[in-house]
Amino acid sequence: MTSGGDTLSVCIMAGGVGERFWPLSRASKPKQLLSIVSDKPMITDTADRNQAVVPAERIYVITTQDQASDIRAALPFVPPQNVLAEPYGRNTAPCIGLVCALLAGRDPETVLAVIPADHCIPDIETYAATIRDAARIAEREQALVTIGITPRFPETGYGYIVAKEALPFDGETEFSRVARFVEKPPREKAEQLIETGNAFWNAGMFVFRVQDMLEAFQRFLPDFYPRLTAIREAVDTPGLAEAVEQAYAAAPAISIDYAIMEKADNVIVAHGTFTWDDVGSWTAVSAHWPTDEQHNATRGSTLLLDSDNCIVGNYNEGIIGLVGVRDLIVVRTGDALLICDRARAQDVKKLVAALREKPSTEPFTT
Amino acid sequence: MTSGGDTLSVCIMAGGVGERFWPLSRASKPKQLLSIVSDKPMITDTADRNQAVVPAERIYVITTQDQASDIRAALPFVPPQNVLAEPYGRNTAPCIGLVCALLAGRDPETVLAVIPADHCIPDIETYAATIRDAARIAEREQALVTIGITPRFPETGYGYIVAKEALPFDGETEFSRVARFVEKPPREKAEQLIETGNAFWNAGMFVFRVQDMLEAFQRFLPDFYPRLTAIREAVDTPGLAEAVEQAYAAAPAISIDYAIMEKADNVIVAHGTFTWDDVGSWTAVSAHWPTDEQHNATRGSTLLLDSDNCIVGNYNEGIIGLVGVRDLIVVRTGDALLICDRARAQDVKKLVAALREKPSTEPFTT
Repeated sequence: MTSGGDTLSVCIMAGGVGERFWPLSRASKPKQLLSIVSDKPMITDTADRNQAVVPAERIYVITTQDQASDIRAALPFVPPQNVLAEPYGRNTAPCIGLVCALLAGRDPETVLAVIPADHCIPDIETYAATIRDAARIAEREQALVTIGITPRFPETGYGYIVAKEALPFDGETEFSRVARFVEKPPREKAEQLIETGNAFWNAGMFVFRVQDMLEAFQRFLPDFYPRLTAIREAVDTPGLAEAVEQAYAAAPAISIDYAIMEKADNVIVAHGTFTWDDVGSWTAVSAHWPTDEQHNATRGSTLLLDSDNCIVGNYNEGIIGLVGVRDLIVVRTGDALLICDRARAQDVKKLVAALREKPSTEPFTT
Repeated sequence: MTSGGDTLSVCIMAGGVGERFWPLSRASKPKQLLSIVSDKPMITDTADRNQAVVPAERIYVITTQDQASDIRAALPFVPPQNVLAEPYGRNTAPCIGLVCALLAGRDPETVLAVIPADHCIPDIETYAATIRDAARIAEREQALVTIGITPRFPETGYGYIVAKEALPFDGETEFSRVARFVEKPPREKAEQLIETGNAFWNAGMFVFRVQDMLEAFQRFLPDFYPRLTAIREAVDTPGLAEAVEQAYAAAPAISIDYAIMEKADNVIVAHGTFTWDDVGSWTAVSAHWPTDEQHNATRGSTLLLDSDNCIVGNYNEGIIGLVGVRDLIVVRTGDALLICDRARAQDVKKLVAALREKPSTEPFTT
C-alpha cells in the first residue's frame, strides 16, 4: 500500500457562475474568480491549499472554455496545460467523467481528488491530511470516497451523508461506509441528523481511482459511457477536441451525487473535521469579514451610524455611509449597487434574472 | 402708486451648505448648486422662476466668496456683477443687511424681494404675482412683508406665522398684519394652528423697501447698523471690500426672523397660495420624483424587487438593485453611497459630521 501520494492528483472544478454574488459576480467574472473571502480569487486560494496535498504539476482545473484564460492567469503556479476546458457547463457528472477519461488515457491508476473551486477551508493541514487519507482508503477499498464534514449547526442549505459501520484505518481520519444521502433537509430534520452523531455535511468533494469512477459511469450512465471511452482513446491524438465535443453534445446535465454517488454501493464517507464553508451567498461571506459590536460585517471603506446586523462590502474606491438601518446586505462595485434584506440573500439570483430580461440592464449581468 | 415693478429687485440668498443632501452635496457643491428636483441646479431654477418677477438684470445673488464663480457659471443669464459675495456665511441677518446697504448705495427707493436659492415652487405664475403684489403693499405700507404659505398639512419641520387683521388690497393676493411667529411646533400644535385658518408656513421669503429694512437694522441691531452705513457710503468706491470685511468681522450670526421680523411692528404676511417646498431633506425630494405602486420614488437607473416605500437616487452611471427592502433612502454618487432609514433623513448631517472627524473619510465631505 502506498501513501496515496505518488498516484494522487487533484482536479479543481471551476465551471460555476455564482449569480448569488451579484453585483461582484458576472457571467464573465464568476464566483471562483472573485476575491470574496480573502484578497485573492477563491480559485487561487483553493489551488494554494491543494499544494499542501500534491505538487502543483498534479493540480488540474476543469472549467469552461470561456473562463479558461482567466483561470490560467489566476493560477501562475499551475502548468497552463493542466487547465482543462469543457465546451460548456453540464453540471458535475459529465465534468468528472471528462476529467477521469482524460487522466485515464495517461494512467488509469491515478487517484483523483475532485474539489470545488469556490469553498473556504482555513485549516489547510487537516484538509490535506484528510484528502491524502481518503486517497489511501480509495485505493485500498477500490471505493468512491466522499468527504463529509462534521456538522457544526443544523444548516438547512446543505445535503447530508448518513454513515453506517466504520472502516478500520491506521491514520488520523475516520471513515465509514455510507448508509444514505439526504437532500437539503428542513430545520427539524437537520437537528435530528446532527443528534445521531452519524451524519455529515455533503461538501461535494470526492476521492477515487479514475478507473473505479469510470466503471461507475459504465454501470449507472451506460448510454454516456462510450463517449468517455472515445475521449480516453483520443488522448494525445488530434481527435481529442472532436471526441470531447461529441461527448458534451450527448451529455446529461446531472450531478455526480444524483447520477452515481447515491446509487453506487462502494461509497465511503470521510469524517472531515476541518472547518468548511461553501460560501454560498453574501450572508455566508459575513462570517469571514471583521464584525463590529453591532454585528455588522464590513469590507472596504464604510462608516456606520446606529446600524445593526448589516453586511457591507465596498469593492470600490470611495465610501459607504449607513444611518439607522438593520439587517441589510449592501454591496457596491464600480458600476452597480445591491441592497438586499439579509433574509433574502438567495433571491439575488432573481434580481440577476430580472436584470437580464431588460435590454437596458442586461449589460450589468455579463 | 406704481405696480411695484419699476423699483423691484430680487435677491437670491445662496450661501447654504446643505449637509442633509450628502453624498450629493459637499462643502464645494452645496444644495443650491445641485440638480435635485429637476435636471438643473436649484439656483438655476430659482433664478429662472424670478425672471417672471423682474428682468434678469434686476436679479441679484448673494453668496459666499467660495461659491461665487460656480454660481455665476450656473446663471449665464444673470449679469456677473449681480452675483455678490459675503466674505463668509453669518446666517441671514448680516446677509440681508449687506444687500440692503449695497442697493441703497445706488437707490434707496429700491423694493427688494429676498428669496432662498434652494426651494421648489412649481407654480411660477402665482408665485410671481404674489411677489409683485407684496412689493406693492410693502411700498404702500412702508412695511416688511413676509411671504406665508397656506399650509397643506401639519408639518412640524417649518415655522408658522399667525395672521391678525386683513389689509385692504386691490390685487389677487391677500395680506394681513402679523400677530406672531411660531417656531417649529410639535404635531398637535401644528394641527391646531392649521385649524385656525389663520396660520401660514414661514417660507423665509421677504419683500420690503431697502430703506425700511435698514431702519429696522438701526432699531434692532444698533451696534451693527453703522457697519451697514459704512458699506452704503463705500458703494462705487475702492473702500467697499474693506467696509464689507469690517462689517462681517463684527456681524452677529443671527437669522433675519429672530433679529428683526419677530420684533418689528410693521410686518405683513402675504397669504401665498402657491405650492411651496423647502426641499429640506431626501425625504422631501421624493415628492418630486416618479413614484411606483409600491410608493418607491426613484431617479436614475434602478431595479426594485419586492421593495416598498424607498427613495432611490442614482446620480451615476450603472445600476442600483434592491431586493426585499423597505423605508430606505439610497443615494449613489460616483464616490459615495448613502443608505439611511427614511425616518432618519435629518440625521444625514450627523453622518457628515462623523465623516469629517476621521482624516480617512473627511475628503468625502469637501
